[in-house]
Amino acid sequence: MTEADGHGPAATSLSALDAIIEKRSGGEHSDSTLAALVDGFVAGTVPDYQLAAWLMAVCWQGMTERETAALTMAMARSGDILDLSGLDHTVDKHSTGGVGDKTTLVLAPLLAALGGTVAKMSGRGLGHTGGTIDKLESIPGFSSDLDEERFLRQAQEVGVAVTGQSRDLAPADGLIYALRDVTGTVESLPLIASSIMSKKLAGGAKSIVLDVKVGSGAFMRTVKEARELALAMTRIGRHAGLNVSAILSNMSEPLGLAVGNAIEVREAIECLQGGGPSDLRELCVVLAGQVLTATGLPGSEERVTLALDDGSAFERFERWIEAQGGDLTAAASLTLAPDQALLRAPRTGQLAEIEARAVGRAAGLLGGGRSRKGDKLDHGVGVLLHAKVGDSVTAGDAIATVYHRGGRGLEEALVALQGAVAIADAAVRQSLIIETGLG
Amino acid sequence: MTEADGHGPAATSLSALDAIIEKRSGGEHSDSTLAALVDGFVAGTVPDYQLAAWLMAVCWQGMTERETAALTMAMARSGDILDLSGLDHTVDKHSTGGVGDKTTLVLAPLLAALGGTVAKMSGRGLGHTGGTIDKLESIPGFSSDLDEERFLRQAQEVGVAVTGQSRDLAPADGLIYALRDVTGTVESLPLIASSIMSKKLAGGAKSIVLDVKVGSGAFMRTVKEARELALAMTRIGRHAGLNVSAILSNMSEPLGLAVGNAIEVREAIECLQGGGPSDLRELCVVLAGQVLTATGLPGSEERVTLALDDGSAFERFERWIEAQGGDLTAAASLTLAPDQALLRAPRTGQLAEIEARAVGRAAGLLGGGRSRKGDKLDHGVGVLLHAKVGDSVTAGDAIATVYHRGGRGLEEALVALQGAVAIADAAVRQSLIIETGLG
Repeated sequence: MTEADGHGPAATSLSALDAIIEKRSGGEHSDSTLAALVDGFVAGTVPDYQLAAWLMAVCWQGMTERETAALTMAMARSGDILDLSGLDHTVDKHSTGGVGDKTTLVLAPLLAALGGTVAKMSGRGLGHTGGTIDKLESIPGFSSDLDEERFLRQAQEVGVAVTGQSRDLAPADGLIYALRDVTGTVESLPLIASSIMSKKLAGGAKSIVLDVKVGSGAFMRTVKEARELALAMTRIGRHAGLNVSAILSNMSEPLGLAVGNAIEVREAIECLQGGGPSDLRELCVVLAGQVLTATGLPGSEERVTLALDDGSAFERFERWIEAQGGDLTAAASLTLAPDQALLRAPRTGQLAEIEARAVGRAAGLLGGGRSRKGDKLDHGVGVLLHAKVGDSVTAGDAIATVYHRGGRGLEEALVALQGAVAIADAAVRQSLIIETGLG
Repeated sequence: MTEADGHGPAATSLSALDAIIEKRSGGEHSDSTLAALVDGFVAGTVPDYQLAAWLMAVCWQGMTERETAALTMAMARSGDILDLSGLDHTVDKHSTGGVGDKTTLVLAPLLAALGGTVAKMSGRGLGHTGGTIDKLESIPGFSSDLDEERFLRQAQEVGVAVTGQSRDLAPADGLIYALRDVTGTVESLPLIASSIMSKKLAGGAKSIVLDVKVGSGAFMRTVKEARELALAMTRIGRHAGLNVSAILSNMSEPLGLAVGNAIEVREAIECLQGGGPSDLRELCVVLAGQVLTATGLPGSEERVTLALDDGSAFERFERWIEAQGGDLTAAASLTLAPDQALLRAPRTGQLAEIEARAVGRAAGLLGGGRSRKGDKLDHGVGVLLHAKVGDSVTAGDAIATVYHRGGRGLEEALVALQGAVAIADAAVRQSLIIETGLG
């Protein structure tokens, strides 16, 4: 990360009140003003009502590329920045979040098999299904509790290490986000971009690929918005001296067929063994190629697909899981919830829509997610789709299997799924990758 | 005051967060949403960070006429509303604040002499010189501490009663202003207008004339801004069912010649006796005429000037001051500070500028004002100008007498005064009244 201080238009930092007035007047903050705001808020010397007014002024007036980068770096520096300088070809991926997104589980060992190093500190997610750590904990024995020494050693030896968020990465982001959430200031491109990128910068990897999701199941509903966010984030990365690029991918229907925790790990393993749904495979190949190239490693499609097909990616997955205590003989038959229900096609035709958000909500209703920090989630429940948008179905066909535990949340989940699916006389298959190589 | 609830576009009130989002999206609040915001903030259930974000969203998106009126009425209703319904022709004046503005001291008895009733609850001011109550307290024995019964009885019998702010008028305004002051949200037309008018509505008078000052010594620097504020305030008055009109008057140089406390009372008495500076007399005549007409009394210029010239206004002043315990035999020689210094013209020419703000600052430096609630001020100190903009002066002429107490603040005050005055080869007399009959 390069130092941004001193690149700003002025060296002095303004008081919080002056900063608010500067921003509401359409002015441009110096780097030191932004650092003083972030540091002051974290320290409690800038009160929440001043930061709230400033955040709304940012929603109003926006921020320049330089300001956005300076804000991000101030947030990244508010806590520890992981020092991965002892590792070669450190790579990371970030997705803006979607339903059925198990890409990290595939991408991490795939990249390691191709020469990259993935040393990732990850949190437990809130939402309809768990985060990467939750999904990994579907594997019997898997531990996400690595101390720093073991974490770095494993990353060096195996090429992959994923640990729970024990260190305080970009604490300013969490504090500011909590305030944005209650002050109507979530929706602001520079604030969204800096929030995401502050954690990535603190994560320490040199090359990062961003998967910005677009569509009804994503935070960004239009390609235009998603492209703007992608470019804002890659520009921050450039200011920070990192290799950051982005792709836009479709998140109207779920990624792949599996939505849940254990069931997504199963699908990831299929993909790592050269199989699995074609959209998941395609996304992993594109993301891997892009980040490998960025870090100076050969990232041709042939090389990446070969690593999936020849077993080298799966072999790396096995070494990784084993290094963190996971039992893959048990994982080979990852335990799903014992009870099943089928969703059947109400008519004959082509699947025109499988609304991702509603499928995610169904998995959450079954117990697969958490809405509050610390909630327990059920690794076994989930939804397995039997078709993708564009496929033909006949009335009465099973189009999804619902794995539930004793009927918990089943009725509401089925209602959500029924509402998610639309069948029409004709429908077109959606293209997954919308744009690559942004930034 | 008419009820505004139910006139809004929607009957339900939104949560504070929903209200913030509605406003940042350019939406229009219902009356009940605005009342819920104000009441919630006063009660402490809407936290300051949410109100701060909302205030900035208002600076950004503005408010409609109806919203501004509803906000004002919610603020007025946050405390007591004076019940003056037992009095006839209740009139009030508000000035947006200037230097040397002793208009209320003249206008109140003048209006009473012409059939109006002035029952005014007034605060002690912050600023370079005191507020109306402070000026009145220059008069030996004068008491601003009237209980409600005596206050109303005196208003009925004498036509004038001015009491200190014992009741809690529009407490929401003070709380919201304090937050605006530290969140860069002071400058917003609907917020300024609603702040001023909430106190006027709570003050209970039926007819109100607003003196909106324009120029370097005023809050509003341009005629355009001042006119917009004036119209915003008269519109609020109309929504509240009151007779509110406004004028714009010049506040580049001080009003009249005296700036201080006792010295301003002296000048007001001169005016009430048919003399005094012509600009002060002109302003009082215009304001009186306008508010008398609004309340249905004859307000011709002839009738008003006659009341100043025939002693009836001064007689009403004497009865008023006596009723509140003031000793006017002593007041006739209102005690000024014992020490004097002269400011002399540095060159021959015409007075091109007497910067009002700087003259006010000079009076404050001498001890004539207070910067914090509860500070004691010196009633005797002040500045008496000997000339107005446009007058000819000869090098060495005294252009101002400074009344000080043992040199306290004298040096800085003289520097401020020297900086305030510009003499040129030719200068034009400024016109005081810029526009009348607004609203």
